[in-house]
Amino acid sequence: MVQIDINCDMGESFGNWRMGRDEDVMPYITSANIAAGYHAGDPHVMRDTVEMATDHDVGIGVHPGLPDKMGFGRRRMDATPAEVRDYVTYQLGALDAFARQRGVRLQHVKPHGAMYSMLSESSEHARAAMEGILDVDEDLIYLATDMHIYEVARDVEGLRAVFEGYVDIDYRADRSLIVEQSVADKDPELVADRFVSIATDGVVETANGEEIDVPAESICIHGDNPEAVELLRAIHARIEEHDIELASLDEIA
Amino acid sequence: MVQIDINCDMGESFGNWRMGRDEDVMPYITSANIAAGYHAGDPHVMRDTVEMATDHDVGIGVHPGLPDKMGFGRRRMDATPAEVRDYVTYQLGALDAFARQRGVRLQHVKPHGAMYSMLSESSEHARAAMEGILDVDEDLIYLATDMHIYEVARDVEGLRAVFEGYVDIDYRADRSLIVEQSVADKDPELVADRFVSIATDGVVETANGEEIDVPAESICIHGDNPEAVELLRAIHARIEEHDIELASLDEIA
Amino acid sequence: MVQIDINCDMGESFGNWRMGRDEDVMPYITSANIAAGYHAGDPHVMRDTVEMATDHDVGIGVHPGLPDKMGFGRRRMDATPAEVRDYVTYQLGALDAFARQRGVRLQHVKPHGAMYSMLSESSEHARAAMEGILDVDEDLIYLATDMHIYEVARDVEGLRAVFEGYVDIDYRADRSLIVEQSVADKDPELVADRFVSIATDGVVETANGEEIDVPAESICIHGDNPEAVELLRAIHARIEEHDIELASLDEIA
Amino acid sequence: MVQIDINCDMGESFGNWRMGRDEDVMPYITSANIAAGYHAGDPHVMRDTVEMATDHDVGIGVHPGLPDKMGFGRRRMDATPAEVRDYVTYQLGALDAFARQRGVRLQHVKPHGAMYSMLSESSEHARAAMEGILDVDEDLIYLATDMHIYEVARDVEGLRAVFEGYVDIDYRADRSLIVEQSVADKDPELVADRFVSIATDGVVETANGEEIDVPAESICIHGDNPEAVELLRAIHARIEEHDIELASLDEIA
Repeated sequence: MVQIDINCDMGESFGNWRMGRDEDVMPYITSANIAAGYHAGDPHVMRDTVEMATDHDVGIGVHPGLPDKMGFGRRRMDATPAEVRDYVTYQLGALDAFARQRGVRLQHVKPHGAMYSMLSESSEHARAAMEGILDVDEDLIYLATDMHIYEVARDVEGLRAVFEGYVDIDYRADRSLIVEQSVADKDPELVADRFVSIATDGVVETANGEEIDVPAESICIHGDNPEAVELLRAIHARIEEHDIELASLDEIA
Repeated sequence: MVQIDINCDMGESFGNWRMGRDEDVMPYITSANIAAGYHAGDPHVMRDTVEMATDHDVGIGVHPGLPDKMGFGRRRMDATPAEVRDYVTYQLGALDAFARQRGVRLQHVKPHGAMYSMLSESSEHARAAMEGILDVDEDLIYLATDMHIYEVARDVEGLRAVFEGYVDIDYRADRSLIVEQSVADKDPELVADRFVSIATDGVVETANGEEIDVPAESICIHGDNPEAVELLRAIHARIEEHDIELASLDEIA
Repeated sequence: MVQIDINCDMGESFGNWRMGRDEDVMPYITSANIAAGYHAGDPHVMRDTVEMATDHDVGIGVHPGLPDKMGFGRRRMDATPAEVRDYVTYQLGALDAFARQRGVRLQHVKPHGAMYSMLSESSEHARAAMEGILDVDEDLIYLATDMHIYEVARDVEGLRAVFEGYVDIDYRADRSLIVEQSVADKDPELVADRFVSIATDGVVETANGEEIDVPAESICIHGDNPEAVELLRAIHARIEEHDIELASLDEIA
Repeated sequence: MVQIDINCDMGESFGNWRMGRDEDVMPYITSANIAAGYHAGDPHVMRDTVEMATDHDVGIGVHPGLPDKMGFGRRRMDATPAEVRDYVTYQLGALDAFARQRGVRLQHVKPHGAMYSMLSESSEHARAAMEGILDVDEDLIYLATDMHIYEVARDVEGLRAVFEGYVDIDYRADRSLIVEQSVADKDPELVADRFVSIATDGVVETANGEEIDVPAESICIHGDNPEAVELLRAIHARIEEHDIELASLDEIA
């Protein structure tokens, strides 16, 4: 029996502005990456999202971002490693309090947007953030979006790390992702095939037909995609035919 | 031997803007109320302030405020009980993460400015905030600034509450405070006398010469006052002559 | 020939968060109240909205709000008259720069949400804001949402003021609005009837069947309503049958 | 008779946080670069600073920054040319409204911190911002901090540009500035000598004794320096001995 997690970004509404289809997607995932007020989210959205996640037994993670709501945390800024570490710590703690109010523990950390890019490009930034996370709670799992950041995470002694793969966008042969494409165009059966392929064999076919290793224990689904629920249903249908069990990061790592 | 705590608002700098004389005051106090990014403070200031407090064995509390930096959290706003509870929870968690990074536990919560006023005027708001605090961590102490809020806190089952008194501004006979006055004008010996009087007898003399009960286990000192260090030195000198021991809230409550 | 203006709140998106159906509604209105970055909107949204408005020959007004994005400017706060005046001035100027870039002049000012309520309840606040507006540009029109604020505006010497009416929600006999109802339920023909009635006779029928005076030269339409375009089309169809001409505030006041 | 302007950053307080010694410095300068709410400043500070400047017949300019109060606008961010142009437009307009309330016209624009660096490094960003400024008001002067940005400004048809020099920090031979040094260490007489040298001959001596061209019509003084007033007094004393007249940018450009 193979275990794999499905993670999705959640709680990216802010004040009166709605974003994403959290209620539709939540029943199909096992881990939620919840925004914590810097790039998106606010205390009320965080509380609601934590409640919804726990109602569905979904593992709760923080999705920290840069302090740039106007740019949705997607613009790199010249922040030092110590500054990024402190932004992660702040948001992690804030979300953790809502988790504790609900009687659950925070499970993981997955940086958002430009913060993720900065950590991926600078080991010094990555290590600072990761050591900060470990100093708060040594059980937290770092959910790594690319191989470089995964290797930095595994070098931080004591830090649990999980590598995530993608099935609703295409890979290049160098395991980078072709993010320009529209997720909406994806065929649910193709997406489900890829899911099974990564889960059972740790491989996926690239855009140009090559097979590459994707040693992922979690699959990220883009929840803002109008077809997200359809893709998730196709995945759920397919895994019943195979020996795949969905499990949150905490059960896997 | 009588025990009493001295608390002071700390960490109210923000970005490049400095406020307060935290470094000078920290050696003389036993509990710090640390801003958490809403009315003042930011992640770097929070980290620095937590470090400074733990270096001096000072108990760490969160000083949550309304989301209004431009008004320094001093303007009431029509926020619901649930909104205020969520603002407290968010800031409480954020500061707690920095405390955990330093290996210490968060000790107390003392709302700031207009948030405090809103809790004092509306039991519904106060109860919502307090139950939220208790749901995060049942060991947290609520530091109560007036008798009304103290009574609400004591009615919340399981919540530890401590009442605080003031010695650097004058009381009226109804135990309200005459906040218009400048703290700077206070005579250090008078302030130290009041401190001893509250600590040992639980009473203080009002502006018009009456003696009133102030059953405080903590004394709040205004740290932004240029004379704060002088007042604190006078207090420290005086308590050595009496049977008074300074202790953080956690040792007292 | 009777002239009347149709105004609608616009530009309330923020960063990546979308709100309203500005593109659908803009062709049917004559004046746009554009958010200016405090309760909603940002510089890019403001620029886009000004462009869209000028493309449709729609008069441009600023829709200033309180500095509270998390509460969408709908929560009263204890701001002084001078503070509110300065918030209006700031936002007015910011939007004006985008209008000037497009070669057009700012036409009017209509405060949003809780800022409007504060001005309506306190003549002192209203007068401070209005005098501030007049001091920036004596040609600006104040778009008044209720009779009390309209009277204050008319007392400010030199200030042009226009009173606005509503047709997509019901009036009470005292000319207050029943805002709890859903705009979506409104029958387009009823809304169009009311529009004609206010435009030609200055009267409207209340929820309980009484006829009251609504001496409005502008009608506010709620643009976030999914049926807004349908209501606007019904209004446009009806006015062709009557001697009513749509005109922006500047042509009317 | 030679004319030269003295400019200084002003209005960088925010809410309850004070910064700079604007009241002390204002009597000695001829142009004020006033923060407009993004990196520093707020509507009340802007109003007060505009009043103070007009009381001293000081020319009013906007000092726009990136939307990053926590980093005081000193951190580069990946904003597009269009985004930076819109940030400049927004802040320019906001300050302009306060100037118009006081009956004066906005004189100039001088970008702050990392926004300045971004414009200096990317001609595309610089041109976008400058064309945006020109589209708002063709009389505005662009105050250029280095030769590269000055040349871009002069290439924007119709834009008035002025180059500024520095006397309270040292130049390198390539006309770059040695910003690490403390301004406080500067000898007032040396600073005044440099001022006269730039004003009359357009040259200054570098840190290693070379003489370089600094064809400046304005000199920037760092007003947050505790010695700023002493330096300004030394400059004022010296220019009386020479044929130098202080004049705001508007009189010079």
